[in-house]
Amino acid sequence: MGLFIGLDLGGTNLKYALGTKSGELIIKSSRPSLADREQAAIFKNIYAGIEELLEAAAKQNETVTAIGFGSPGSIHFEKGQLIGSTPNIPAWTDAPIKKNIEKRFHITTWADNDANVVALAEARLGAGKGYPNALFLTLGTGIGGGIILNHQLLRGAHHSAAEVGHVIVEFNGRPCNCGNHGCLEAYASAPAMVARYRKKLKRTGVEYKINDLSTELIFHKAAMNEDLAKQTIQEACNYLGAGIASIVNVIDPDIVIIGGGVSEAGPEFITAIETEVKKYAIKAIARDLKVINASLGNDAGVVGAIFLAAENVKP
Amino acid sequence: MGLFIGLDLGGTNLKYALGTKSGELIIKSSRPSLADREQAAIFKNIYAGIEELLEAAAKQNETVTAIGFGSPGSIHFEKGQLIGSTPNIPAWTDAPIKKNIEKRFHITTWADNDANVVALAEARLGAGKGYPNALFLTLGTGIGGGIILNHQLLRGAHHSAAEVGHVIVEFNGRPCNCGNHGCLEAYASAPAMVARYRKKLKRTGVEYKINDLSTELIFHKAAMNEDLAKQTIQEACNYLGAGIASIVNVIDPDIVIIGGGVSEAGPEFITAIETEVKKYAIKAIARDLKVINASLGNDAGVVGAIFLAAENVKP
Repeated sequence: MGLFIGLDLGGTNLKYALGTKSGELIIKSSRPSLADREQAAIFKNIYAGIEELLEAAAKQNETVTAIGFGSPGSIHFEKGQLIGSTPNIPAWTDAPIKKNIEKRFHITTWADNDANVVALAEARLGAGKGYPNALFLTLGTGIGGGIILNHQLLRGAHHSAAEVGHVIVEFNGRPCNCGNHGCLEAYASAPAMVARYRKKLKRTGVEYKINDLSTELIFHKAAMNEDLAKQTIQEACNYLGAGIASIVNVIDPDIVIIGGGVSEAGPEFITAIETEVKKYAIKAIARDLKVINASLGNDAGVVGAIFLAAENVKP
Repeated sequence: MGLFIGLDLGGTNLKYALGTKSGELIIKSSRPSLADREQAAIFKNIYAGIEELLEAAAKQNETVTAIGFGSPGSIHFEKGQLIGSTPNIPAWTDAPIKKNIEKRFHITTWADNDANVVALAEARLGAGKGYPNALFLTLGTGIGGGIILNHQLLRGAHHSAAEVGHVIVEFNGRPCNCGNHGCLEAYASAPAMVARYRKKLKRTGVEYKINDLSTELIFHKAAMNEDLAKQTIQEACNYLGAGIASIVNVIDPDIVIIGGGVSEAGPEFITAIETEVKKYAIKAIARDLKVINASLGNDAGVVGAIFLAAENVKP
């Protein structure tokens, strides 16, 4: 049935790859995403990536059956179009991804939210392989996610399911970037951890510039047994435990998969999250629930986009 | 394809009805559920109800194709058996509902959690008719619920999905009956509302015995414009708003349906909940989301059990 192209647009890079319907990558590449340019320039850059892969496929006497695309923001799946805007790529507002790519290449294209696409990759080929129901969270600057139920992505009635960073863990709590108060993201995202650590240090008389701090530094200090760093991580795990427990009490998955930059802190962090989730989730769910690390790393976006294309193309 | 029997076992009454595959009731009846008796007596009582309906069907020259059963507690759907216990019917622990009824009557039987069964009825014939994705909550002594996604009940990996009373609204908050802290049920169930109202009255020097108070009284006093009663209701709506928003941010339904005893307080209460949910839910979801009252009342359990039977029987 030919090969598939997967693209993963981020605030910094556009990753793209050619692969088989089973998610095996044949060629992968990346280029700057030109996130600060106008929409036409971003699309032109995307076309250049696709052309590169089409030429590579032609050289191997292979055809490309369909294209999959992971993008930040809410995506109207049937239209393959951004709903509104996404903060890190200002000109990407309402981007007609499917329409433009199909017009340019005459190859069927599907687009979905980037966290959904990564969740799909992890479900098919990564940490969630073999589990019908998975909750995927990505911990980084924000907290995003994707939900797989009965092996399929849950997209929701308004293309907005799995806004897992915006479950409320503290009634009338801290302000969140979404405009609400008390969201999980306001307590356990990378910037929230950094802000909390900085505040703790300040109380002991140590002042850091915010840009000199990072979650990497916090995990490093914790590994050196520094109390304030360890407390900061434990507090994030407590909030993640409560927030994830609320979600698993609603959807009852087989498995919770943790990805994103912060998750690279290592197995102890994942174990600490699991301990807290099991403390807060109802017993019938907690008993057999596993919390594990994502396993596909940086390739997850393009692999998921390839699955998105391969699974939606008409046979 | 014959008729269907639906049963709805509660802590006080066993309701049972004979109906068509479209949920139209032909005969309905009820008897005490004998909730304080041993399991054999409860089953015997259930058999008597079924026999009554089988005889009625025979008199009309109709056959019964399948039986559906709604029960409190977590139900292993494939086995049709209770998982563990349920507080209001002590001897009902591990009850093999499907196995016993099939053995006794040789009629295919399905059992599911009572809130799931009510959610199914509301989705097919009630307030949720025509909406593919619905979140149903029942507000009463506890807070339970059911989730319909793409027209189907979400049962979860451990038969425990839609434990909507146990989303956490307050980190390290009040103790909940489930053993956890900060659950929605600990803030917005009928007993939680009564306890909060009683505390407010006590501060003004008015002492009530807990048994003299009820949510009916609170709603009545609020209708008479009593401030403390109005505050109590508003606070419950605030917590319900936060808890329901957390759930809709995860599953993104078309509609939220509120049922159970407390929901009978009237349209103003439902509107107040909707206002709070829309305050806390992400904008893309809140914009088109509706929060409405359940519409099938006391028949919802037997109607849902009939749908459960009719939809699962092999054609």
